[in-house]
Amino acid sequence: MTASPSAQAARADKTGKPNLAFRPLPVPQVDVHGFWGDRADAVAARTADILYDRCVEARMLEQIDPDRPSPGVVIPFHSPSPDEAERPGAEFTGSTVTTQMFWDSDLGKTIETAAYSLYRRKNPELEKKIDAVIDMYGRLQQEDGYLSSWYQRIQPGKRWTNLRDCHELYCAGHLIEGAVAYYQATGKRKLLDIMCRYADHIASVLGPEPGKKKGYCGHEEIELALVKLARVTGEKKYMELAKYFIDQRGQQPHYFDEEARARGADPKAYHFKTYEYSQSHRPVREQDKVVGHAVRAMYLYSGMADIATEYGDDTLRAALDRLWDDLTTKSLYITGGLGPSAHNEGFTSDYDLPNETAYAETCAAVGLVFWASRMLGMGPNARYADMMERALYNGSISGLSLDGSLFFYENPLESRGRHNRWKWHRCPCCPPNVGRMVASIGSYFYSLADDALAVHLYGDSTARFDISGTPVSLTQASRYPWDGAVEITIEPQAPVEFTLHLRIPAWSTGAALKVNGEPVKLANVTSDGYAAIRRTWQKGDRVQLDLEMPIERLYANPQVRQDAGRVALSRGPLIYCVEATDNDGQLHRLTLPRTANIEARQRPELLGGVVTLSATGQADAGDGWRGGLYRPEPPATTKTRLTAIPYFAWDNREPGEMLVWLRDG
Amino acid sequence: MTASPSAQAARADKTGKPNLAFRPLPVPQVDVHGFWGDRADAVAARTADILYDRCVEARMLEQIDPDRPSPGVVIPFHSPSPDEAERPGAEFTGSTVTTQMFWDSDLGKTIETAAYSLYRRKNPELEKKIDAVIDMYGRLQQEDGYLSSWYQRIQPGKRWTNLRDCHELYCAGHLIEGAVAYYQATGKRKLLDIMCRYADHIASVLGPEPGKKKGYCGHEEIELALVKLARVTGEKKYMELAKYFIDQRGQQPHYFDEEARARGADPKAYHFKTYEYSQSHRPVREQDKVVGHAVRAMYLYSGMADIATEYGDDTLRAALDRLWDDLTTKSLYITGGLGPSAHNEGFTSDYDLPNETAYAETCAAVGLVFWASRMLGMGPNARYADMMERALYNGSISGLSLDGSLFFYENPLESRGRHNRWKWHRCPCCPPNVGRMVASIGSYFYSLADDALAVHLYGDSTARFDISGTPVSLTQASRYPWDGAVEITIEPQAPVEFTLHLRIPAWSTGAALKVNGEPVKLANVTSDGYAAIRRTWQKGDRVQLDLEMPIERLYANPQVRQDAGRVALSRGPLIYCVEATDNDGQLHRLTLPRTANIEARQRPELLGGVVTLSATGQADAGDGWRGGLYRPEPPATTKTRLTAIPYFAWDNREPGEMLVWLRDG
Repeated sequence: MTASPSAQAARADKTGKPNLAFRPLPVPQVDVHGFWGDRADAVAARTADILYDRCVEARMLEQIDPDRPSPGVVIPFHSPSPDEAERPGAEFTGSTVTTQMFWDSDLGKTIETAAYSLYRRKNPELEKKIDAVIDMYGRLQQEDGYLSSWYQRIQPGKRWTNLRDCHELYCAGHLIEGAVAYYQATGKRKLLDIMCRYADHIASVLGPEPGKKKGYCGHEEIELALVKLARVTGEKKYMELAKYFIDQRGQQPHYFDEEARARGADPKAYHFKTYEYSQSHRPVREQDKVVGHAVRAMYLYSGMADIATEYGDDTLRAALDRLWDDLTTKSLYITGGLGPSAHNEGFTSDYDLPNETAYAETCAAVGLVFWASRMLGMGPNARYADMMERALYNGSISGLSLDGSLFFYENPLESRGRHNRWKWHRCPCCPPNVGRMVASIGSYFYSLADDALAVHLYGDSTARFDISGTPVSLTQASRYPWDGAVEITIEPQAPVEFTLHLRIPAWSTGAALKVNGEPVKLANVTSDGYAAIRRTWQKGDRVQLDLEMPIERLYANPQVRQDAGRVALSRGPLIYCVEATDNDGQLHRLTLPRTANIEARQRPELLGGVVTLSATGQADAGDGWRGGLYRPEPPATTKTRLTAIPYFAWDNREPGEMLVWLRDG
Repeated sequence: MTASPSAQAARADKTGKPNLAFRPLPVPQVDVHGFWGDRADAVAARTADILYDRCVEARMLEQIDPDRPSPGVVIPFHSPSPDEAERPGAEFTGSTVTTQMFWDSDLGKTIETAAYSLYRRKNPELEKKIDAVIDMYGRLQQEDGYLSSWYQRIQPGKRWTNLRDCHELYCAGHLIEGAVAYYQATGKRKLLDIMCRYADHIASVLGPEPGKKKGYCGHEEIELALVKLARVTGEKKYMELAKYFIDQRGQQPHYFDEEARARGADPKAYHFKTYEYSQSHRPVREQDKVVGHAVRAMYLYSGMADIATEYGDDTLRAALDRLWDDLTTKSLYITGGLGPSAHNEGFTSDYDLPNETAYAETCAAVGLVFWASRMLGMGPNARYADMMERALYNGSISGLSLDGSLFFYENPLESRGRHNRWKWHRCPCCPPNVGRMVASIGSYFYSLADDALAVHLYGDSTARFDISGTPVSLTQASRYPWDGAVEITIEPQAPVEFTLHLRIPAWSTGAALKVNGEPVKLANVTSDGYAAIRRTWQKGDRVQLDLEMPIERLYANPQVRQDAGRVALSRGPLIYCVEATDNDGQLHRLTLPRTANIEARQRPELLGGVVTLSATGQADAGDGWRGGLYRPEPPATTKTRLTAIPYFAWDNREPGEMLVWLRDG
């Protein structure tokens, strides 16, 4: 823990084992096409503007108080019922400015989404609007660097008095991420400079040094944001501040107790009862169970993984591996969704994975993608990448409609037809979160170390990077995720030696690899789920990877009560579901026999082009009941054709029932 | 609707068809032994005193305000969590007097439970305490007859301004029922006189006559109570008032709208949004769906059935039959529980019967017993009696522990082990409701018309009644519900002709009847599920009824999503469940194969003596998962012995999982 961070060099940890830091390729260095290209196009063409329109109504706020400009979040109210207001059909017949304390965070993520989208599609109008927001932040920032719309407008004089509840550093974190992205995308430094000043102010107030508050945020986020800020500015001080927040979390005497008492409040009166809610119940290196608010947990672990990578900190890495085990073996939906309970927006007990009432917030699955991708910073390992892929293709992008205009906050695995996408939400954290993730998808495809490139995700794309001083371009041609054939072409400006790591997904029951047409025996070159090809790459070198992509029936561990006697379908990285519109009758009546022959079918006309799965199943028949509710004879069954679509694409047509876990026959 | 009520005579309805009014035998005329004797003993020995102790702390209230004595409900608080306070292990470390507006109702039901229990077991101490409560009510009653603890203490001056929400007539109804029972049990008229004065006052304020308010209660109850009062006093005016409340309900202009406006409130601001909540959304004769708060619905329909019987009102009867159909074919749990949702304590949508989150309030199943028994007032019909029996033996008495000391408010059909009986509840309506029902169980066994006696329930008991002026005693000897053999001995003081109606339960796959040893062909004498034996009965006449009592696998209508692929077990009137303590491992892992041989076994040592059902089933094995959550291979299965107990007896041992609907294999 004494090593200093290094932005580039490979380092040795305490055991002398080389510890290669892999960093994601920055967004501008990767062009994605195909599946992810379509998603990113929808975000660039629609979502980015929608986020701005919904999120930022600065003019309206200035009308309210022209002397104190501030961005604000606008929530539609067209009826007394907030549920109603969130339904897809809801009209914006009125709006009100809220006093939400997380204003700045949603705006930060909106800036980030806009920024990443600018690589894909010029949008001068949106850029102008974002510039205006940044100008407003410039005016809002105080002399000493402090910047918080909510504290400055709603709680003046109270800054740094309630880190536990009030999202102060969380908001700073998201604005920092927005600033980094906007700087990378446009070269404009204004917001970056603003946020550096604010980060400097934060470091002057909080930290291990005598006289500073020993605080950290109740909602993690600032940690991973400061790592980004350190990397983009080269300023070690931001990395150190991030590390301080990680190290200090959960230490005794507990800062949140002391802070509450300083406010004259009883620490025991804490609304969420336990500091597990914010993963501050004990020091992070002593944690071994994923607890509390799911998004907070994912953001914390992401920051921890960054710091573990930057400092070669094996104590952090060990804690992260325990937490990873806990999440992935006890509390993760098959969709990569997580956090089953609305009560704490988070975790409950081991193996508690209700389907219809699954909270499984879009932000939490996005957060898992963040965490997994940062675990890959410590080297290629399919243990993390497989899960990143699952969360990406299923439980996270399910939160965004195919056209990029409508959103899910919760991502249940079963619906009676009344869980539908909304235009906006009173807590609008998810839309810009999935937006920025999709807009920056290229950075999850590849990561780069000193003399290695890892390919984590497959799909049509081109990456540009320098390795050992040589510019290289790498192109994937593939119909992935609809097909497992991937052809990679490598074009170095000059021959250059490096290792190419290729993920072999665990779901692939067989894979074949060829380099320039020559078969490579995977068993000989694969470790941790990645095939490593080290060679001096020449212009036009071709790597062919053929991943078998079988349709699989998946079963849940019998400890999961909600999935007992049920089966889910997958093909490649995609989890499938049945929707009412493609099937006859009520979905709970359907059974998928063990002997069913399941067929995959290309459906270019459906849902923007998907592969469906279909089989002959059985349906409980409703006849013969003569209106009765119960009888001694079991229901008769009839044959029926079942058709499943990828889970991410559900509720993009007429509202109706949806089911992931079918009855297993 | 112009016929006048008659307490005794058979009448003809508009079609000229004889309309015999059957009235339950009053409690003192029936001694029950066996199964119901044990239950009633527990209530007499324990529940009645517990209800008083928990419910009535008049002394404490008098300490608070000695000048205005009033009964009150005491709720234990030993921790900040109300859930905690209701757990069985919770200690009474403190208490607080609430301002619950339904104080008087819980006390009324407590008086009723105590009264009916006095037939079974002398309890001079409790009687003295009840006398003191009655004295207090005597002091509380105002000059004009008005009587309401809550209005007089908490809302003075506001009487009759919010019938919709404030339970004013509901409380009156329960005190009337208590008064009738206490008068019948002890011969003491004081409370009866108090309540007649109050009823007279009510009739002076509310009613169809000019100058009176056109109101009725938001929580039905007064209707059926006034029928009882009319029957015990012979005063037609109380029957007329009951009929008025039934007739007026849901008429336009809507009284609750007008009343709200008179209070200066917006009728649209009604918390429950729709008058369906209190079944006042339309006139009762136009209703055809069971909606809203389940207990309210059952009480309303009970009152409607009484009025239909008393006035020979076929328009009411037709509405009741529509409602009965709707409930029993779309919204009734297999346990006889009803009202799945905690949100409105009532009904949701057709076929929505969640098991783990079932609200299925004890009071609602008790209310269904009330309703069904009153439908039998219009003549013996197994359509009603079978359902009465199901609710009695399952979803209602599940609310009372075997020893009579602990209670359930909700009666789910599935539990993870954390739904446990409590000592008391912040809304303590259920304990005295199930208490009074069990204490008066004899009155549900038999009902009497001019020249007929109907036997609705079987079990060791002796009934005494006069028919055509002749005293008759009828004794049942039976091990029912554990065995279907029933031997009935009839002892008239002199030979007397009447019809004996014997219910042939629908669950019985075969029944054999003998009169004095001579077989009677059931098909020839049975209609509406009752065998009718008309003869001149002599001393010592014996009737033997042998009901086949097979173990049945029951399946739910495929429209019920929550029971798809599931099976429940029954034997005779009893629905069964599996509990963790009798079975290996988690209950959701168990499957009951279709081919399983299910055995019934007498277990005199278990749960006060029950018949268990057991079979060899299959359990999903947990091995081979190596900590994984999902995999392509289905779980292995192992053989396991399943043991089921009657549902009513669950959670009387150590806490653990419970399941009614097993996986069907």
